[in-house]
Parts: sequence; structure tokens; C-alpha cells
Amino acid sequence: MIGAMENLTVEQKAALCIGADFWHTAAVPGVPSILVSDGPHGLRVQPGAGDHVGLGGSLPATCFPTAAALASSWDPDLVREIGEALGEEARAQGVGVVLGPGVNIKRSPLCGRNFEYLSEDPHLAGVLAAALVEGVQSRGVGTSVKHFAANNQETDRLRVSAEVDERTLREIYLPAFEHVVTRARPWTVMCAYNKVNGVYASQHGWLLTTVLREEWGFDGVVVSDWGAVADRVAALVAGLDLEMPPNRGVSDRAIVDAVADGSLDEAVLDRAVDRMRTLVERAHRPEPGEAFDVDAHHALARRAAADGIVLLRNGLPGGGGHDPEDRILPLHDSPSLTVAVVGELARTPRYQGAGSSQVNPTRLDVPFDELVTALPRATVSFAAGYALDGPGDRALSDEAVALAAGADVVVALLGLPAVEESEGFDREHIDLPTAQLMLLSRLVDTGVPVVVALAHGGVVRTDPWEHRVAALVECWLGGQAGGGALADVLTGAVDPGGRLAETIPLRLADTPSHLNFPGEEGRVRYGEGVFVGYRGFDALDRPVAHPFGHGLSYTEFAYSALTVAVDGTDVTVGATVTNTGGRAGREVVQLYVGDPQCSVARPPAELRGFTKIALEPGESRTVGFTLGARDLSFWSTVHGGWVVEPGEFEIAVGASSRDLRLCRTVTVDAPLPRRALTADSTLQEWLADPDRGPELRAAAGPGILQDEELLRVIGNFPLGRLAAFPGIGISRETLTRLGA
Amino acid sequence: MIGAMENLTVEQKAALCIGADFWHTAAVPGVPSILVSDGPHGLRVQPGAGDHVGLGGSLPATCFPTAAALASSWDPDLVREIGEALGEEARAQGVGVVLGPGVNIKRSPLCGRNFEYLSEDPHLAGVLAAALVEGVQSRGVGTSVKHFAANNQETDRLRVSAEVDERTLREIYLPAFEHVVTRARPWTVMCAYNKVNGVYASQHGWLLTTVLREEWGFDGVVVSDWGAVADRVAALVAGLDLEMPPNRGVSDRAIVDAVADGSLDEAVLDRAVDRMRTLVERAHRPEPGEAFDVDAHHALARRAAADGIVLLRNGLPGGGGHDPEDRILPLHDSPSLTVAVVGELARTPRYQGAGSSQVNPTRLDVPFDELVTALPRATVSFAAGYALDGPGDRALSDEAVALAAGADVVVALLGLPAVEESEGFDREHIDLPTAQLMLLSRLVDTGVPVVVALAHGGVVRTDPWEHRVAALVECWLGGQAGGGALADVLTGAVDPGGRLAETIPLRLADTPSHLNFPGEEGRVRYGEGVFVGYRGFDALDRPVAHPFGHGLSYTEFAYSALTVAVDGTDVTVGATVTNTGGRAGREVVQLYVGDPQCSVARPPAELRGFTKIALEPGESRTVGFTLGARDLSFWSTVHGGWVVEPGEFEIAVGASSRDLRLCRTVTVDAPLPRRALTADSTLQEWLADPDRGPELRAAAGPGILQDEELLRVIGNFPLGRLAAFPGIGISRETLTRLGA
Repeated sequence: MIGAMENLTVEQKAALCIGADFWHTAAVPGVPSILVSDGPHGLRVQPGAGDHVGLGGSLPATCFPTAAALASSWDPDLVREIGEALGEEARAQGVGVVLGPGVNIKRSPLCGRNFEYLSEDPHLAGVLAAALVEGVQSRGVGTSVKHFAANNQETDRLRVSAEVDERTLREIYLPAFEHVVTRARPWTVMCAYNKVNGVYASQHGWLLTTVLREEWGFDGVVVSDWGAVADRVAALVAGLDLEMPPNRGVSDRAIVDAVADGSLDEAVLDRAVDRMRTLVERAHRPEPGEAFDVDAHHALARRAAADGIVLLRNGLPGGGGHDPEDRILPLHDSPSLTVAVVGELARTPRYQGAGSSQVNPTRLDVPFDELVTALPRATVSFAAGYALDGPGDRALSDEAVALAAGADVVVALLGLPAVEESEGFDREHIDLPTAQLMLLSRLVDTGVPVVVALAHGGVVRTDPWEHRVAALVECWLGGQAGGGALADVLTGAVDPGGRLAETIPLRLADTPSHLNFPGEEGRVRYGEGVFVGYRGFDALDRPVAHPFGHGLSYTEFAYSALTVAVDGTDVTVGATVTNTGGRAGREVVQLYVGDPQCSVARPPAELRGFTKIALEPGESRTVGFTLGARDLSFWSTVHGGWVVEPGEFEIAVGASSRDLRLCRTVTVDAPLPRRALTADSTLQEWLADPDRGPELRAAAGPGILQDEELLRVIGNFPLGRLAAFPGIGISRETLTRLGA
Repeated sequence: MIGAMENLTVEQKAALCIGADFWHTAAVPGVPSILVSDGPHGLRVQPGAGDHVGLGGSLPATCFPTAAALASSWDPDLVREIGEALGEEARAQGVGVVLGPGVNIKRSPLCGRNFEYLSEDPHLAGVLAAALVEGVQSRGVGTSVKHFAANNQETDRLRVSAEVDERTLREIYLPAFEHVVTRARPWTVMCAYNKVNGVYASQHGWLLTTVLREEWGFDGVVVSDWGAVADRVAALVAGLDLEMPPNRGVSDRAIVDAVADGSLDEAVLDRAVDRMRTLVERAHRPEPGEAFDVDAHHALARRAAADGIVLLRNGLPGGGGHDPEDRILPLHDSPSLTVAVVGELARTPRYQGAGSSQVNPTRLDVPFDELVTALPRATVSFAAGYALDGPGDRALSDEAVALAAGADVVVALLGLPAVEESEGFDREHIDLPTAQLMLLSRLVDTGVPVVVALAHGGVVRTDPWEHRVAALVECWLGGQAGGGALADVLTGAVDPGGRLAETIPLRLADTPSHLNFPGEEGRVRYGEGVFVGYRGFDALDRPVAHPFGHGLSYTEFAYSALTVAVDGTDVTVGATVTNTGGRAGREVVQLYVGDPQCSVARPPAELRGFTKIALEPGESRTVGFTLGARDLSFWSTVHGGWVVEPGEFEIAVGASSRDLRLCRTVTVDAPLPRRALTADSTLQEWLADPDRGPELRAAAGPGILQDEELLRVIGNFPLGRLAAFPGIGISRETLTRLGA
């Protein structure tokens, strides 16, 4: 144990609860300082006391795929590997805590920071984030799961209040944090900038203490997002241990004064100090000479990027890829093949987002160069086609069209310029730049098949133009090796491993949060409740461009032999998946659960399990899932907990949320949650109760209980109110007799 | 002045604040009892002390069209006439206060009581309800505008809390009440059953006192909906004067005890007593021999019903009624015409809803009989086709199809059976009964043109079947003379006068409130905010079956000569409407306003004016509208009031919310609402201020203000937070210098 609390002065304790500078915790007697670093997909260590806020000038580090790309892998093993690599890089750079992963739910495609977040689904986000945390921490380096909680937009992010009911928090916005905290035990959790129902997340005792520590058992340090503390003492009381960066002379003074005047119990301060001490104890101490394998990490980044590339469409227009004969991908290298690579992004790749996660990469793959390398026998040539900034350029477009006209296939790299998405602001639309769409239209008009590969962080609209292209490949922001990964997938060296971790809508206005994003006048109403992402699209039966979970392989998979065994609220599911195509490939087998008859409105289907498997041609594998009560539950505000309502549940296994290949309806036998009937319970509730209903009928005088028509009209009256109504047959004496 | 307060004991005062029995106020020395009666579209006076809760056995009264039908008239003059007739009937039956109108907004088509409500639009609802109140009260009889407030569903209506933000209340759910209270001065307002943001409407001091009395100047009595009082003393304090029906022995006791123990200021009781006394003073004292003209009122009911019938479609399938040659309606009486009238509803009409508004009509038109009368030379025959209760009946269907096959035209009366909609419960779908749709399909298959006339209270789905019929006539629940009115419209004796007061969606799931109706576990989230009805459909650019404001005439109208004059925030609009068809007809000219650039999200267009005009063929009329600041405003929670933001507004005049014939964008010059800049204001807000922005730039040291890229990322930081960041150039001294 480092130090001893009794030796520290109040001033020293206060100093420990705010940082020393932008990236270091404070050193006090017996407790050394540690270095923390931005970068869930790669480190951003700024050397010395240089530019602390600016985004440039950090030490070189491997830029792994962003969270948006990584999540599309649906592969916790891969993510764990990346975590291990991040941990090694952190050790080499003397970093004690890596500030990530970010598990906020993608409530709207407009959120400017979506590239840093994993999914619209809390289960997928939670499982993958836990793997990253395990990987990093296995190397003796801490993590900081962020941003806790309900930080789902950049607009007015330091002041806006997320107005969100508890059921929605419990089912959508908290479970990813809960999963990471309870399964992977991160050393720190980072609170969000925003308010939640009117209270700053940094001062939210219910979030930071009741839920995080008391319910989930979190034993680490809660650190503020940089600048998130409004009132240091209130934050300390709520459970925020470390303020970063330090508001020196203000926050420390406030703590010391509050202890002195008795308004802050020193035990509260000691609790935070104790947690800080434990964190510093845990943290790796920099050892000179530690290094990481730059080449190996680049190779890992390339593998990861390929695993996150989603083949959305593969086939000549109208085909859709179901008939192997229609497919344009993979490209087969041959001396007779001529490929026109079009798009400035093929030469000037976009591979990461802007803001605190920005990495100075160790090297950088250029997509065009990688395609040239990957197709050594073919003729591969390049035209920029458009400029990344500014309007359409006719000369560039003409050049590209001319190049395309002479090729067998066009590979067009399209995407968003960096200025369109970043931490700090939200997007206002989800369209590709007009110049790119105009170019694409001309390319398609040549009659040469066009393969579009997309690079961007947040979802872009693909309708209606995608119906004119031969294949559509979603690369997200794939990190420094994204160019090589794209070449791997386009040439078939790697089967496209990605599946969508978020829905691609037909148009922005279709997204369930649309009318309530990003809010106004300091408040954002989470009006869609639990119906976020595919949950909402499905509940509204609204068509989408590409559903959650979708992604094609170069081979095909057949699903068979569904088994479902129910034991109380435990459900065991099995299914057999067979590679029926001619190539090895990878499939993400997804399990969804629905509760069609429930006293609350529930999404038609929710992801409750998934597993990624690799199968040789002809190979079969049986995958299994085990569900417990929580997987069948909803959060009941009335009961103050998770509730399984007995009855029918739909169990479905498939290749996407809208490609459910095997379905079964099962009956789950659970005790019906009951509440005591009172005078505030309605006539209907009394009559529906198997015990109390007959009692009421026996106790009541002649009146309404005999009149079925009238019963329907006033059945929703609380029994107590009816006692004041003449001619009902329910007097106050009746209520007394019933104990109501 | 009746009585004198100082002469009443506390017990007598308490008695006056609860009723004497189900329909009478209490008599105390000097204050006689008065009778109140249900019935916004007709009285429901139950004689003697008979069945008070049951719905039957009331005195005969004219059953006028329900609110849903009446609102479709868009005709305040007509509604005022009906109010006058209701007032006369009330006088004849000794009724002091008529319990209506109901102005709750139709938030969802599922609300079981929608037939009793006017519209999804608060302006339309408010103008029509004010006319009704003026009409009734012109006869010395009071009204009770209900249900105040946010009572937009029947499910769990006595307990559910409507969770709705203030802007939505102010812009959507309160304005109809506000309009009626401020323009027509109703004698009473009836509070709702439900809670609003957790507080019973009956105990809601902000609603019943702050808004209703202090802001709107209401000087009448607030009466509870029947059984709405949970805590009589809390309700009294909040501003509820009269509890109905009396919870005798409980509520009066509670008031007396609270005065005795000092927890209730007797002045609060006196205030309510004073209002009750004023109400009784105002009320008409029954005079023997007063009667009403049953025949004249029936004729008025017929005229009103025809004025509310909406011709949704008129033309052979695929036509749509734009080409007069395609039109099937009106039917021309001739000896060669054979009409098959199909549908049990033609013989057993449905003309009013179920629940407290149920009227015992003075007589009842049967649609089939009326058609026979209206087409004296034609052959008009009848087949039931379906039974109102139960599944399809093959024999009935066969008979109807055979009849149809031999006719020139089929008039099919379809609609909802009474059991499907009522006060007391909400619907679960909006489809017509399957048996009727199957019959309709067979009728259409005969090749004989089918005219469908619909009778129901809440919206029913018309897609996709309406595309196969020759004409579609929406009758709603048209009251006792609805049959005659239908004959008038079908034969062209009357031009169809109705326009939709609510959107007909393509499907239920398209309605903006769909995911949040009717809520769960005691709460309903108004998640769509102000985007109710057409406001939401338009904001989402979602297609509908028939838009708000739609309705065809038998003639055509051309719109021309738009004039828009802007003076500050006063906007004067003129437009010329010309009857370009060959028949006299009526048009509802509608004015919509949009505010495309605003700091809050606003509906693309909102109804701000309308006028109904009758034009002879070739006749033109110029209609004018005057808008004020309020018509351009939104409710700002931050500013605590109505705000006009200067800039562009869209002014549109047309025949429906989606048939805007004349549009103009104008610039409104209003002072930009400004707030003092503080340390909690963001960097962006400071920089955007024309005065303070330059001050900040001058005061700040070298740092972020020179870095445009970084400015975008952290521009939403409050200035105060940035003082803790190194390298920004904004120190605490800078803040002090700026007075932030």
C-alpha cells in the first residue's frame, strides 16, 4: 500500500482529487503521479508540457480502427487482442490509464462522435467494450469506460439535460456500462459532460454511487470528462473522485473550505483519496526500454480493419448478391483485368475521426497503393474524381469518367471529409457530398460496373444511389491499415467479416429519434424511449436501407436444427450453421428475443447473443446460447426492478435483425409480478385478480358489476373513487370489508 | 347577489363545494341548487333520482352531430347556432350548465373518446369550441370546457400521468382552452381525470390557478370531472371549486377539519364559495312551460351533419376526382337509375358515441329511408351485407353482392360497431371490421361503381381499399339527422361541406404518437412533443391517406392574388378564391404559417386561420387574415414566454395542409431575444454576440481563438470551464474582466 491516509493534510487530499496538469494526476507524499492518455483506438500521448488542448503533436502510436469499424467486427476476441496491443503501447509510453472505450449508444446517426462509439445496441456495445477493457488491463494498464451516461450528442454537450426515463436508461443507455463494469472491472469510469434529468452527470449521485457502485459493485475511480465538473464539492459527494484537468485554486480551495466549515464530511474526501491511491497502486510504473512491435501492431490493425468491413451489397444492379453468378466481388487478379480506382480518398485516406481520439499513426496505408500491390497482374490506375474540400470539379470528374470508361471495373472510394464529422459538433444531414454523388452518377452511366467503398464515421445515406452500383463496401474509419484491409477484402484475400452495428436508414427522417434530436433550450427529450435504432424501425415496421446485423460474406450460410429448451426463466438455444458456398467464410450468428405480449411496450426483437464463426466450405457447426431471466426482462419502474412476465417469448436466430432464419415461440413460466390491490387499484384490476375478483363480486351490492356495457366504460376507475358514485354497489363499507 | 357569505357556516360552505347528488349542486341558505347535464352534442338529463351512473333513460333531446363531425364543418357560425339550440333545450329541461364542449387534442387515432373531441389542431378546436360556448351561453345557460388538461386517452385515465413538457403544453394542449376562456368566457371549466407531470389535474395549482385564472383571467368555477378528486383539500387549494359527484361524508368532512385545524385557510374556501355563488346567480332558473322546437332543431342537426361530411374521394378508381367527367357523385335521380344500398349501418345507423355524451334522440333518420326519399324516381333497394356484431355472414354477403351486381351504383355504408369505440377505453387498431372489408372487396369485384360512406367516431384506415372505390364519403357520427344529411350530400342537394379536422394516416404506426400511446406503468410520455397530427406527418415528410384540412367539393376553386403585408410582427394576408366549376359550392380557405429557421424545432406549417365561404359558379371572393405576434411565436421555456424570432416566415394559403396553393416567404423584423452572457454561456455564444464577441477576442490571450479547427471542437464549452484549461488564452482574470 502506498502512503498512509493519516499522513496527508486536507490540502494534499484535495490536491489528489484534482489532476496535476492536463494529463497527470497529482503527486502527494507516498502517492506518485500517473499519466493518462486519450485514445480508445490508439494512444494520444502529448510529450512534455506542450500544447495540451490542441490535437496535434502526439507521440506516434498505432491507429487501430475506430470504434465504429471495430464494432462491425462483432468479434470480442479480436477486440481483446487490440486491447492487449493498446496496453503494450501504453506501457511503452508510460501511460497508466487509457481513456476509453466509449460505449455510448448511437441514438442518432447525426451524433458527431458516433465514430468513437460502438453500436446502437447495448448488448453488442457492452460485450465488445468489456473485451477491450480486459485486453488493455491484462497488460497492467487501466481503462476508463466513458461517457457515463446518456452522452449521445455533441450539441450543447456541456449543458444539455438528457431527459430520459428510468426504464429507457436501464434498458438502453446503462447496460453497456453495466456489462463492462460487472464483467471486466475497469479501473476507472469517466462521467459525461451533460446533465441527466437536470443533474450534471458529474454530480449525479444516483448514477455515480447508487447504480455504479452500490448496484454494480464498481470499486474504481470515477474521473470527470475533461472540464465536466461544475461544482467540485457536489461532485465529490456524488461520487466523482478525480477532476481533470485540475481547476487549480478553485476546486482544491472549495474542498478544503468545505471540510473546514463542516459542509463536507472529511470521510467523503478520504473515500475518494483511498480510491485514487488504489488506482495509482494498480497502475503500471513506466520502465525504461519498454517498447512495442510496430509491425505486428500494424498487421493487427489491418486484420481488424478487414474484420470490420461490411459488404452491404454484391451483385450487378438488381441482383443483390443472392446469385453467385451476379457477384462482382471479389476481384480476380489477372493480366486482362483493368481497374479504375477513383476518388481522392483512395489517395488521401480518411481513417480516423477528429477530436480527443486523434492519433499520430506509426505509418499509413494508402488504398490505391494497396490495391496496386494486391492486384500485381492487373492494370490498376487512379483518378481523384473530386476534391475533399469544395464543390465539384469538372476537370477531375471528366478525368475519372474517362478512366472508368476504359476499365473493366471501377472502385470508387467515397466518404465524408474530415470537416463534416468530429467530436464537438453534430452533423446536420447524412448525405454524401453532392460532388461525390454527381461523380458517382457519371461513373455508373458509363455502364462499367462500379464498386463503391465508403469511408466515414457516422452513417451515410445509401438510398437510392446504391441500387445503381455493382457492390457496396462499408469501411467506416478503418485506422492506419484500412487501405490494406480494403485491398484484402476486395481481392478476396479475406472474407468480409463485418456486420452492421447500426441501422442504415433509407432517410434521416426515418430514424426514431429524429424529432427529438438534438433538443433545444438546454434539454433533449428521449421521446422514442427504448425504441432506439432497430428497436424503433422494427416497432414501426419501417423499411431501412440495411438492417442492424446485416453483412454479406463471399460464401453462403444455411441455418438449421433450432433447439430451444426452457427451464423456468433459463432458455438454452442451439442452431446449426453450414457453409453451403464454395469458399471459406465467416458468419455472425445472432440471437434475438421478443416478448410479444407484455404489459409494457417492448421492441419486437432485441439482440441477446451473438457468436462469430469461421467455416470451411461444407463445414457445419452448432452454436449455443444460454439466456437467463435478465435476457427476458424489462425494467419495471413500478416494481423498481427487472421483471419477467410469464407467457410467450419469441426466440429467433439469424444473420441480421431482419434476416431471422429460425424462429420459435416458447412459453416461459415465471411468477406473475403482483401488487397488493388497494383503493387506488381499478375495478378492472380487482376483477382480473383470481382471488380478489370473486371477493369483490361477493362483497358488492347489486349495481355496476352486473352491467357489462357500463363495466367497460368505468372499469378503469379506482375502486376508491367509485365509492362516491351512487348506484354502483360499492360503498365505503365494501372497501373497508375488502381491506382496500 | 344571492345570500351573504358571512351567514354561512363552514359546514355549509364545504357543502356548497361538493354537489348535492350526481347532477345537482348543493343548496345552502341563500344559494339554490342548479342542475348540470352531460352532452356537448345533445343533453342527457336523467329525470328524478333514477339511474345516475347508467347511460340510459335520459329525457329526449336533439342529438346533434358529435364533435368529430361538427369540427369537420370548420364553420364557427354553424357551431354557434348549435350552441344556441343546445341552450334552448337546456332551458326547457331546467339545466343550468351543459357539460361541454370537449377540446382535448386528438393525439392518437386510438383515443376512445375522439368522437367527443374536435381536432388534432388547437386553433381549429379553440375557434369552434368558443363558438359553441358563445351559442349556449347566449341563452343564459352555462358551459364547461373540458377536460383540463392533457386528457388525451382513456387507458388508465384516472391515474395516468401525462408527461409533457411546457412548450408542448403551451403550443398544443392548452391553446384551445386558452382561446375559449379568453374569447368566450365559459362559466365553468372541467378538470381532467389524469395527472399532468405527476400531479392530478384536480390538484394542479399551476394549471387551475396560475395559467387558467392568473394568465387567462378565468373568473368562473372549476368543476371536477365526475370522480376526479383524490384529495378534496389539496384540490380546493389548487383552485378546484366544485367536486362532482359529492364524496359526501369524506370531502366535506375533510374541508371542515382542515379549516378547524388551521391547515386550510378559510379564505381559500370562501373564494370557492364566492365563485359557486356567482355561478348559481348566472344560471337560468327553470321556468315552467319553456320548450324547444323539435322540428327546427332536427333540421339544424341535418344541416350541421351535411356540413361535416367530408368527400374524401370522388371519381372512378385511379381518377381521384380531378376530372369532373370521372366523378360518380352526386347521384342524379332518374327512372333509369338503380341504386343498391348495402350495409346494416344503412338500416341501423350509428350516429353517436358511447359514454357520458350519449343522447336519447327526439327522432332518428335512417339512411336507407332517406335515400329512397331523396331519389324518388330511381330504384333504391337494400341489403344488409354484414351484421354489426360477429364475424362475416356469407348469406348476407351473397345477397348484397347479388343486389349490387344488378345496380348502376352501390352505396355501401361501412363503419365501426358501437362496441369498438367508447368513452372508457381506447381502440387497439384503426381497421374496419374484417367482415365489412371482405364484403367491400366482393362488391368492388362486381365492376359496379361503389360509393363508400363511413360512420364511426375515430379515424379508420382507408388504405389500400379506397383505391378501388368510386367515391369515399366520411360521415363520422352525424347525430340523429345524419341519414338525411348523407342523402343530401349524395344527391347533391347540399355541397359536401366538410374538411378533415384530423389526418387519416396510411397506417396506425405512422402516427407520430404511436410508440408512446397509451403509455405504461402509470405514465404516458408525450415523446412526439409539438409534432402532433399533421405537424408530425409534415415534419417527417411522411405520406398520409388524406391530409388535415382535405375535403372535396362538387365544384372547383381557384386561388389567386396572394397579398402579404408585414408591419413589425403583424402580418396581413389576402387571397382571392374563385368558383371555377359549374355548381355552387363551399370552400374552407386555410392559412398556414411556418418558421423554417428557428432556434427550436418547429412544425413546417401550422394552421393560423381559416374561413368558410360559399361561392356561386364564377363568383370570386377575397378573404383576409390578420396575424399577430402570437401566431408567429413559439413558447420558450428559457425565456418563460412566447418568442418571435426575427427572420423568414412562410405564409401559405390553400385548401388543405398539403394543398397549399399560394405561398410567400416574408421577413419579420422583431427584436432578437437576448440573454445576458455569463460564465455558463458557451464560447460560441460569446463569439456570436455582436458586442461581447469582439470584447472577448480583445481580452483573451493568444490561444484557441486563433485556431478555427479547435474552435469547432470545443466551441460548445462554457467560458467558465475553459478557464481551467491551459493554453486556451481565457483565464479567470479574463472572465473577471468580462464580468462573466
